[in-house]
Amino acid sequence: MDETKVQAAASPALLREQRSTIDALLDAETEQLRLDRNDPASPYFSGDPRARVDRRRFLLGSIAAVGATSALPRSARGAVPLGAVEREVPPDASRVQGFGLDDESYGSRSQFETEVRTRFKTATPQSSWTFTPLQKSVGIITPSGLHFERSHAGTAVIDPSKHFLYVHGLVAAPKKFSMRDIRRFPSMSRIMFIECSGNGLTEWSKPTLRSVQGTHGLTSTSEWTGVPLSTILNEAGIRGNAKWLLAEGGDGAAMTRSIPIPKAMKDCFLAYGQNGEAIRPEQGYPLRLIVPGYEGNMHIKWLRRLEVSDVPFMTREETSKYTDLRPSGKAVQFSFDMEAKSVITFPSGEMVLEGPGFYEISGLAWSGRGAVKRVDVSIDGGKTWRPAALQGPALPICHTRFRLPWQWDGSTTVLQSRCVDDTGYVQPTLGQVIALRGLNGPLASIYHLNAIQSWQVASDGKVSNVHLY
Amino acid sequence: MDETKVQAAASPALLREQRSTIDALLDAETEQLRLDRNDPASPYFSGDPRARVDRRRFLLGSIAAVGATSALPRSARGAVPLGAVEREVPPDASRVQGFGLDDESYGSRSQFETEVRTRFKTATPQSSWTFTPLQKSVGIITPSGLHFERSHAGTAVIDPSKHFLYVHGLVAAPKKFSMRDIRRFPSMSRIMFIECSGNGLTEWSKPTLRSVQGTHGLTSTSEWTGVPLSTILNEAGIRGNAKWLLAEGGDGAAMTRSIPIPKAMKDCFLAYGQNGEAIRPEQGYPLRLIVPGYEGNMHIKWLRRLEVSDVPFMTREETSKYTDLRPSGKAVQFSFDMEAKSVITFPSGEMVLEGPGFYEISGLAWSGRGAVKRVDVSIDGGKTWRPAALQGPALPICHTRFRLPWQWDGSTTVLQSRCVDDTGYVQPTLGQVIALRGLNGPLASIYHLNAIQSWQVASDGKVSNVHLY
Repeated sequence: MDETKVQAAASPALLREQRSTIDALLDAETEQLRLDRNDPASPYFSGDPRARVDRRRFLLGSIAAVGATSALPRSARGAVPLGAVEREVPPDASRVQGFGLDDESYGSRSQFETEVRTRFKTATPQSSWTFTPLQKSVGIITPSGLHFERSHAGTAVIDPSKHFLYVHGLVAAPKKFSMRDIRRFPSMSRIMFIECSGNGLTEWSKPTLRSVQGTHGLTSTSEWTGVPLSTILNEAGIRGNAKWLLAEGGDGAAMTRSIPIPKAMKDCFLAYGQNGEAIRPEQGYPLRLIVPGYEGNMHIKWLRRLEVSDVPFMTREETSKYTDLRPSGKAVQFSFDMEAKSVITFPSGEMVLEGPGFYEISGLAWSGRGAVKRVDVSIDGGKTWRPAALQGPALPICHTRFRLPWQWDGSTTVLQSRCVDDTGYVQPTLGQVIALRGLNGPLASIYHLNAIQSWQVASDGKVSNVHLY
Repeated sequence: MDETKVQAAASPALLREQRSTIDALLDAETEQLRLDRNDPASPYFSGDPRARVDRRRFLLGSIAAVGATSALPRSARGAVPLGAVEREVPPDASRVQGFGLDDESYGSRSQFETEVRTRFKTATPQSSWTFTPLQKSVGIITPSGLHFERSHAGTAVIDPSKHFLYVHGLVAAPKKFSMRDIRRFPSMSRIMFIECSGNGLTEWSKPTLRSVQGTHGLTSTSEWTGVPLSTILNEAGIRGNAKWLLAEGGDGAAMTRSIPIPKAMKDCFLAYGQNGEAIRPEQGYPLRLIVPGYEGNMHIKWLRRLEVSDVPFMTREETSKYTDLRPSGKAVQFSFDMEAKSVITFPSGEMVLEGPGFYEISGLAWSGRGAVKRVDVSIDGGKTWRPAALQGPALPICHTRFRLPWQWDGSTTVLQSRCVDDTGYVQPTLGQVIALRGLNGPLASIYHLNAIQSWQVASDGKVSNVHLY
């Protein structure tokens, strides 16, 4: 390299000088704007007939607005919706300076946006879950602040500088990795859904929860970034007789699951990133095992230990829980895959349509086995079906947005969607699921309900959760 | 539809009953966990040798931790980093219950994550910009709270229920749309970058800013959702002689730009969604015009007016500003496209490598004209180049993550990346850009610097911004 061609980074003095130049440019811009606002010949004149506002009325309106913020929507827990900052709302934002940009910022949503994750009111808030508000979702990404939660002993709080991952068992050399070690390995990213196998658990025998947040809100999509699990296992060197891998969380439940080695080596990874930043605390900060397409509880959060073995570990979470009771009295264990599923998010339960006319039916489809190939929509309770448009990219093991234009004639009807994945699997009706798996256990069945969802639109526009078999 | 097959949504009584059943299940789970913790035969025994902690020491540690939170990283503006909630950190998270899930929540990042947007300290905070901390970026999505900002009169605060979009000029029928109207039209989503044409404006003549946040932080990627602009223009019916469209923002600057009708009809859209929720206030809430691949200032925020014309409008923002001065003294106007560009985000300016050894070079590439086809990386100041791996999906007009394994021998060198897009365009060297466009204007040049970035790695591991021509 020719060192003479290298020019060193600037001195603070140069930086100050360039800042002065930029300030002068921006001062001129601000002054020009002030002149324009007072020049009747300028299109930016404050008296512009395109938005005529009497100066005195504007000032009065401005003063009135200071006291008018009490009309804002409020969350149940405080003056401003969660995740938002309250700001004064001028009568016409184009007549006033906006809020200045902060010197340092991590932005928040608008004070007019109020959707939240809601908790299913279990006995303790530690062993509980919260639902993503899918009724307000657009696109495929779930905002990290609204990603569903499922915890067995609450959200662990971990200092990443003191967190280690241990790899032992049937390996050539046991290993201990710091978070810094893990971040130095070659990385990968994947936009992917995670769904709790209990998504829809209240909906087996009767339509119970009223909105799509309750019936389907235990699935979310993020861009996850991390290190392939195969890289980590190859560092330790798994032995020839290795068949299963135990993953253990560093939370109070020491959440543990057994994962077949072929799956671990195929596409699992250890995520430290979510939607472009560090993984969120409730998603397993600083490290989560990602097991693409498998049930959510296997994506071990707060990951601290991997143990290689020749047999599955038969942990509490895969024996007493996360098994599927059959009518015979026996339970199916290791039902890993999240099968193809879909749901219409607009219109959906608890919404009220304004009246007959045009609506775009929109929803999400996904499959743990691959990409969504087709989504059919019925506007007549399953009598006829039409293929919906899929928003690209339709990524494998990822929420895929579907849409169908709909002219509602105002009569009572039922809307349904049916996902077909690229293995050819067709999302079953509720009747088909029950015929196959039966209604067993304390809540009828619990896990892996992937039946077609039915939303009834009544003639008064009210949308409700109904069961069609 | 057979009404007899429709079962109505559940009564509150049924819901309460199902909740009791779930509570009983979860109570049993909690009790089992308690028993396991006290059972030396259980793998969940608190005295488990895999993580032996003396009970008394644990309790003392627990008490000590209450006072230990002062050791946490702090933001300059308060006790806890922006966007985070401070929580007590136990010495071993697996020995205590975690934090309970909130009944209603909009989650925040970990208190250990401290990166923020930083403002370039212009004379006023309203006419200013903030930079995305690309040095901490992973994947391609930018967290909405860290999306770069550029405002001409601050962040407008707008109540969406009182916001309207006006469409007039050379149209068959002028239109006024409420936000509710706009949300009823057929929708679309697109994962896409927006880059300020001023990205790198300090870097023309000398290396000035020290980190990649300063040199390249005016570009960010989100999933944007909204309505095709063609749908809206077709509603109004554009006349045969229409050639240009004025878009006007509802902010204090009445930010305005002219857009050619063919572009408007081809792929522009009006976004109300960003990363799965409503567009953020500083990005134009409730409505922003998206002009794929064109310079950021044309993506008019707080959009309130579209006017169709047969000539461009020659607004202040496209005459006195956002033009490119040439050595001849003439300025190039309507330089819309953001050409292919890339930058290495790790390692990058102000970082310090720990020493010789393995590192993964990682960065972002993008082009306003299409998809990234290839990224070449040089580890010897441009003498030789190797193709980097591209993380799929490599979407058109979208940040694309590239990676190259690198064994650093500890000697001083310069790292560079070079983007090639699917039109065949090759990202130029700094010398090539200057030869083509000259160094004119108060800051040498200002807009559309897309030259190859050079990071010097010194033998002590320090990484700095240097210029190679």
